[in-house]
Order: sequence, then C-alpha cells, then structure tokens
Amino acid sequence: MSEAPRRAATSASYSITMRLHTTLDHTLIGAVATSIAHGGGIVTAIDVADSRQEGLVVDVTFSATDAEHSRELVDAVGSLAGITVHKVSDRTFLLHIGGKIEVRSKVPLRTRDDLSMAYTPGVGRVSTALAEHPEDVAKLTIKGNSVAVVTDGSAVLGLGNLGPGAALPVMEGKAALFKQFADIDAWPICLSTQDTDKIVEIVEGIAPGFGGINLEDIAAPRCFEIERRLRERLDIPVFHDDQHGTAIVVLAALENALRCVHKQIDTARVVVAGAGAAGTAIVTLLMAAGVTDVVVWDREGCLSRDDDSLPSAKAALAARTNPRCVRGTLHHALHDADVFIGVSGPGVLDAAWIDDMAPDPVVFALANPDPEIDPAEAAKHAAVVASGRSDYPNQINNVLAFPGVFRGLLDARASDITTDMLLRAAAAIAGVVTDDQLNASFIIPSVFNPEVPKAVAAAVRGDAAPPPAFSGSRVAP
Amino acid sequence: MSEAPRRAATSASYSITMRLHTTLDHTLIGAVATSIAHGGGIVTAIDVADSRQEGLVVDVTFSATDAEHSRELVDAVGSLAGITVHKVSDRTFLLHIGGKIEVRSKVPLRTRDDLSMAYTPGVGRVSTALAEHPEDVAKLTIKGNSVAVVTDGSAVLGLGNLGPGAALPVMEGKAALFKQFADIDAWPICLSTQDTDKIVEIVEGIAPGFGGINLEDIAAPRCFEIERRLRERLDIPVFHDDQHGTAIVVLAALENALRCVHKQIDTARVVVAGAGAAGTAIVTLLMAAGVTDVVVWDREGCLSRDDDSLPSAKAALAARTNPRCVRGTLHHALHDADVFIGVSGPGVLDAAWIDDMAPDPVVFALANPDPEIDPAEAAKHAAVVASGRSDYPNQINNVLAFPGVFRGLLDARASDITTDMLLRAAAAIAGVVTDDQLNASFIIPSVFNPEVPKAVAAAVRGDAAPPPAFSGSRVAP
Repeated sequence: MSEAPRRAATSASYSITMRLHTTLDHTLIGAVATSIAHGGGIVTAIDVADSRQEGLVVDVTFSATDAEHSRELVDAVGSLAGITVHKVSDRTFLLHIGGKIEVRSKVPLRTRDDLSMAYTPGVGRVSTALAEHPEDVAKLTIKGNSVAVVTDGSAVLGLGNLGPGAALPVMEGKAALFKQFADIDAWPICLSTQDTDKIVEIVEGIAPGFGGINLEDIAAPRCFEIERRLRERLDIPVFHDDQHGTAIVVLAALENALRCVHKQIDTARVVVAGAGAAGTAIVTLLMAAGVTDVVVWDREGCLSRDDDSLPSAKAALAARTNPRCVRGTLHHALHDADVFIGVSGPGVLDAAWIDDMAPDPVVFALANPDPEIDPAEAAKHAAVVASGRSDYPNQINNVLAFPGVFRGLLDARASDITTDMLLRAAAAIAGVVTDDQLNASFIIPSVFNPEVPKAVAAAVRGDAAPPPAFSGSRVAP
Repeated sequence: MSEAPRRAATSASYSITMRLHTTLDHTLIGAVATSIAHGGGIVTAIDVADSRQEGLVVDVTFSATDAEHSRELVDAVGSLAGITVHKVSDRTFLLHIGGKIEVRSKVPLRTRDDLSMAYTPGVGRVSTALAEHPEDVAKLTIKGNSVAVVTDGSAVLGLGNLGPGAALPVMEGKAALFKQFADIDAWPICLSTQDTDKIVEIVEGIAPGFGGINLEDIAAPRCFEIERRLRERLDIPVFHDDQHGTAIVVLAALENALRCVHKQIDTARVVVAGAGAAGTAIVTLLMAAGVTDVVVWDREGCLSRDDDSLPSAKAALAARTNPRCVRGTLHHALHDADVFIGVSGPGVLDAAWIDDMAPDPVVFALANPDPEIDPAEAAKHAAVVASGRSDYPNQINNVLAFPGVFRGLLDARASDITTDMLLRAAAAIAGVVTDDQLNASFIIPSVFNPEVPKAVAAAVRGDAAPPPAFSGSRVAP
C-alpha cells in the first residue's frame, strides 16, 4: 500500500484489540479497516459484538510494530466521525494475566480411596521404598521428567538486568515450551540473589526434586562459573541454554549453510562478533565440530593471544582461537572470511563489508531484538542469511534445541551433558532438512516441525539409528 | 464373614491387581473371590481380560491390610488348582510411576503468533513493564497463584528422616491436593540439606517466583526457627502445615466437640500429648482461642514451669501452659481433664484412664498411622472421639485447612499469616457443620465438601459475611 509509511514489520506481539462504539452505519467498519491499513497496521479480526438501535459494538484486533505505532492507530480510528474508542486491550498483556502455566494432578483425587493411594497412607509405602532404593526416585516421581528453569534475572532476553520478578514471564514461557515441544514438566525458579556462590548453593539445594537444570538469562561471565561448579556438584545435567542451546542451533544452521555454498567446515574462516555467553559457547562448539579458523571480535577489537590487555575470560578465548593472530576492527576480520556470526548488538555489521568477505558469504545476524544488520539488507550481499527474527527466513531459535536436548537427557537418565551430545543434537537438527528441501532460504527447520525434538532427543540419547530424513550426503559430500 | 481372621481394616492404599491364567472353567472366578474373602481381603474388581480355548485371563483387584497380608492372599489364590498367578501389580505404586503432577501451558503455542506473544518478542514487553512496576508481578505471572511445597525430608509423615528424594511423592501429593481443592499451582521443592541456615537461605533465594511457602515434614525443633526466620525475611506468607494446618483442624474439631458436650472452651481442661511441631502449634492456637488450662505431656512427663531440667523448647512451652503446675504421668494429667489431644505415638493412652477424665470426655488420638488409642476402643469410654484415620468417624485431616488457607492468602495477596487468620479458618471449618448435622460422630466436615475450602478462604481473606451454613449459635450458646 503506497500510502502506508515505511515501517518495520508488524508483530502479533503488538496485537491490540479495541472495542468501538459506532453509529448504526455498517460502512464505518470499512472506514476503520482502511484507517488501520493506511497507518501501517494489519487488521487480523473484526467482530461485531452487538448491533442495536443506538449503534454497533465492534471489536477490532490489529497488529502494530510497536507501542507508539499502536497508539497512533488507535488515535486515527478514534478521530473518525461516528466512532468512539471504548476500550483498548493489549492481547500480549491479557495473555499473561494469571501466568501462563499451571500444575495439574495426573491422578484422580475424588474419593477416599484415591486419597489413600495418592496421599496418606499409601504414599508412605512409596516413600519408604524410595528411601531404601533411591535409584527408583526418578521412576516413581516427577523427578524423572522435571526441569528447573533457573534465572537470577541478570540478563533477561536482550533487555538487561531486570531482576527475578520481571524475568518470571520469560521463564514461564520457557516452561510452557518445554511442555509443548517435549512433554517435559519444567518449573521456573527465579532467584533473589545474583551472587555466584549463593546461586550455586541454592541450585544445589533444590536439585533433588529435578531431573535437570536449565540455566537461563544469567549474565556472563558469572554464568560460566555457575554452570561449571554445578556440573561438578550435581548428578543431574546442567545446561545453560543461552550458551549451548544457541550454539547447537547455530552449528546446525552453519552445517546446512555450508552445504548450500559447498564449503567445508574445517576450512571455513569464521568470524564471531560478541564474546559473551552465546559467543563463547558458539566458538567452543564450532571448534569441536571441526572449525579451525575462528576470529572473535568484541568491543576490544579482534581477540588475539598477542594482546595482553584482555580481561581473563576474553584472554582465554583468544588463546584457543584466531590462529592467524588477526587484530583490529570487525571489518578487518571479515576480509576473506566465509562466515559471519553475530551475537553482539544492533547494527555493528556494515552491508558493504560483506562484499569484502570470501565468495558466497554466510551471514548470521542473531542479536535480539535488533540484529547486527537488517536481514533483508544483508541478503543483497550474502549467499545465505539467518537471523533471530521470525519475520525473515532462517530463524535461529533455541526452541529447536532445548526441548529435544532435555527430552533425550531425561529419557537416558543422564547425569551429564557431553560435547558429543551437543554435536549430535546439532547434526540432528540440520539433518531434519532434507537435501531436497535445502536452499539458501531454508537452512533450518521450522520450530513447529515435530520431527525436530524427536530427532534431537534420539541424538542426545545416542540412539543407533539416524533420523529417517537424514540422507547422509551431508557428512561426506 | 466368620471364617476371616480378625484383622485391621483393609485399605485401597494396599490395593493389588493380579493377572491370573486359568483353565477354561468359569467357576474358578468364584473360587478366587471366595479365597480372597476368606483370607480377609476385599475384592473390588474382577475383569475377564481374555477367554480362549486354552483358558481365561482374569484381572482381579483386591484390598489388603498390609504388604504381608497381600502376599498371603496372592499365595492362597496361586495355590488353587487350575490357576496360575501371572503378574501382581500394586496399584499404589502403579499410580506413582512418572509422578503424580504435571505442568501445563495455559496459553496456546501452536503458531508463530502464539509464540510471539507468550515468548519472544512479546514477553519482553511484559518483563519490561514488570521491571518498572514490580507490584504487578503477582498479577501477570504464576506468582499470584503459586506455592512452593518445601521439605528437607527430615520428618516424612510419621516415617522419620527419609531424605528429600523419598519425600518427593508426599510433596507431589500435596501439590495435587492444592490444585484439586483450591486451584493453586504448587510445586515440590525437596532440599539436599537439613541445615537450618542453608534452608533459610535457599528458600529465601527461590521466593521471588512464589506467592507463598508451605513448609512440610521438617523435623522439630528446627522447623520453628526456619519458619520464624523466613517470616521475618520474606514478603510472602510462610506456613508450616504440620504445625498450623494441624492446629486449625484440631481447633475446628474441638470447637464442635465442645458444642456436642455443652462445654466452654475457656473453662475446658485440655491435655496435649506430644510437644513436637504439631503439639506446640495446637497449644498456641488453642490458647489464642481461649483455652486457659492446658497441660502438655511428653516423654519427660507433664511439662511444668517448676521443672528446670527441661530442654529449651519444652521449657518455653511449659512457661506458658500448665497453670496448676501438674507434674507426673499422662494418667495423672488426665484426672478431671475434659479433652485429650494426642499428637505423640501409638498406644500411649490406656482406655481405662479415660474413665478418670471429667464427664463426657473428648479424645482426639491423632498419631499417624497408629493412634494413641484405637478409636473404636476409645469410643467405649469417651463422649466424642476423633482420629487421623479415614476408616473411623471424625477424621482430623489437614486437607480441610491448607488449600483454603493458601487460597485466601493468595487472593488477598497477603504478605503474612496472622493468628487471627488461623482462628477464623478454624471457625470456618467448624461452621460448615450445621447445628442439624452436628453429633458426636460428625464434628468435622468431609474433606470432599466443597464448601470447606471456600469458607476457609473467605475467612482468611477476612470477607465480611460469614459462611452461609454458619448459624452463629456456636459462638453464644
């Protein structure tokens, strides 16, 4: 629509429902729809709730790009003659009222007999048996299927240190996704402390009731030590999703991107922008998968072992990367690189620099919500582009990894997560995209593809058979 | 049946299903049923699963009194000619496989739009709003409806220090009851430590995600300090069910028992056997309700302020009870007492001693699973008898209290639990039994009466109107 101002894409996450009172003139509905469309909004539903002598009651739902945009659209509709805006509801906030998850009993509790089996006195026999045979706890309780989603609220999405209460809606969403995609019972644990020692002690303290720990939105570098110490102390797997979930999906996408451009992982030159939790884990997993030439760029410039001014975590990263000791700017690092992977911040990648990369460059711009480069702009210069956004092709989304990873870990009653499991999980995700399906706009399966969690779980469990859709040609092309 | 040996009552909690293979003789089914009945078991289901040329496949379900009894019955059936016992399943254990609770999403997650509202990017707006307005966390997350059921596994039911894993089935049962009776989302937290300081720190650490803390099966005297310190530190209510849940239901039952025998609470002489968590809380609440003469008996004898050999918790209890400074045995304390409340151990009350109590004595024998005196035996001597058992009248069961208590606390967004709330909860439970219904065998409502949690919640919230069934005659008879 030529009249519409140029805007970012609308999103259902800015979905507004407004209740209008209008005069008894059905042409007004068209005027409302036109007003919203001209303003750049997307009308998704119009419902005439009541039609009376006095006029109409109409519920109009539309998507906008952001809060200001939605206010503009409401104001524009309200200024139409014959229309009063009665109430404006934000569907995302409505959805969150009362929380997004609940606990349900899986057993009936309607009679005394039910109670006597599920609770006292019957449960006493089960408890006594478990005291004698602790190895049966996972089988006879929810421990065998439950994951604690633990955060200190210090790095909530890309929004920063919002604290544990503000982090809770994210953790609930995660728990809901665990159930939806892998039938896992996850519960949010939002911590009142951001002290490393205390977090370790608290998580260790609550571990007996859970089959796995999913660390979430904990700031770097604290997250590294927390994960390491918990892995040492606990007999259940500990997985920091912002690190390893992201790394798995990035590796899966990279494997398939390299299939598209006919390059080999062990000879590809890779530049990673961002040395935080995600960047560090991506580098580690990529190198485990065979990448030999990876340069990490952060605010200090390219991390190199011959730079002794780096803080310790970055010095450690420099020591095992950057074999050519590249120094300088991101642009410098990108010369002749095959792959750019951004997990840093908005706009750090200039489109023109992509032209200085090797032929058929691969660009993953994963910063959320605003990527290192607009994916549409990047696509003009790169052979393959991926981002974290759902409104462009090739969305790199952790939902592809963590449900299947934990499904596999719980099924196997695993006590640890190994690098081999992460590599197999990545290969399983990549393998869901068949040779026939694979192209530059489809390097990664849909998050709604039910084969993904199944294939990932099987890979993590180490099942002998590869996923059926996996042709094998990818390994030895 | 005269042939059946004299046994304790059978229970669904010892419910066994056995699969039998028999010859093709349908009279054998009758022989099986007769064998179980003669052995003292109760047949609850017979299902012919298959009937073929070779014979029948029959599933027989029966209740027994205990594990040994069930084995005897299985052996007796197996010894019948023409019958082979193929498989024996314990229904209580079958019920526990995979745990008794699950997490469900309350929001749809089937499309990208769903994800963009329940998870990223939409959830980011909710998190941002909550960081700015922390007072809305309870409204927009499960915090407003969730309770942590916390245990260290140190006093699991009456079974002792079984540890956190063995305690988990009990905590799951509790969580299931919270949902069933009060629509509360409770999650079990089983702790790896039994250290008071660490427990306080851990519970404080996980509190931001919960609207209330239900402490459960934590041994005395540690439980008193844990509760006290958590109440000081947290802005959500902390409730040790073994103390206050029990005290509420005991007070409710006592109010109605005294109605039956036409005695007043402020002049009744009460003896409490057992100075543990439950006994201490019962004494405190009874005194808040007006009891003036209460003697506590424990293994040291009657606790009296003139005995300076008592350990500190018991000395503190002695200091505020026993105004007549009674010393000596339980039998001694019971002379002229109106009420015996036992929360101690099996068999401590001799039936003959009840005859030495004041006229129309009230006996609550609440030790679990084996009471201070067999309720049937006590009923020969006392005017009103209550116990913790579901197979006698007047079952004192915490399920009457805790769901409604937390429903009221969460509804009111309460930050604390007050003694007034506990008193009102007890009055609400007592008030559900109308004057018409009240008699010595019905002093307490059924746990399945849906009015109970509603009335308790209203009482805890402090709603102005009393529950409808409450005649008021009880207060000023």
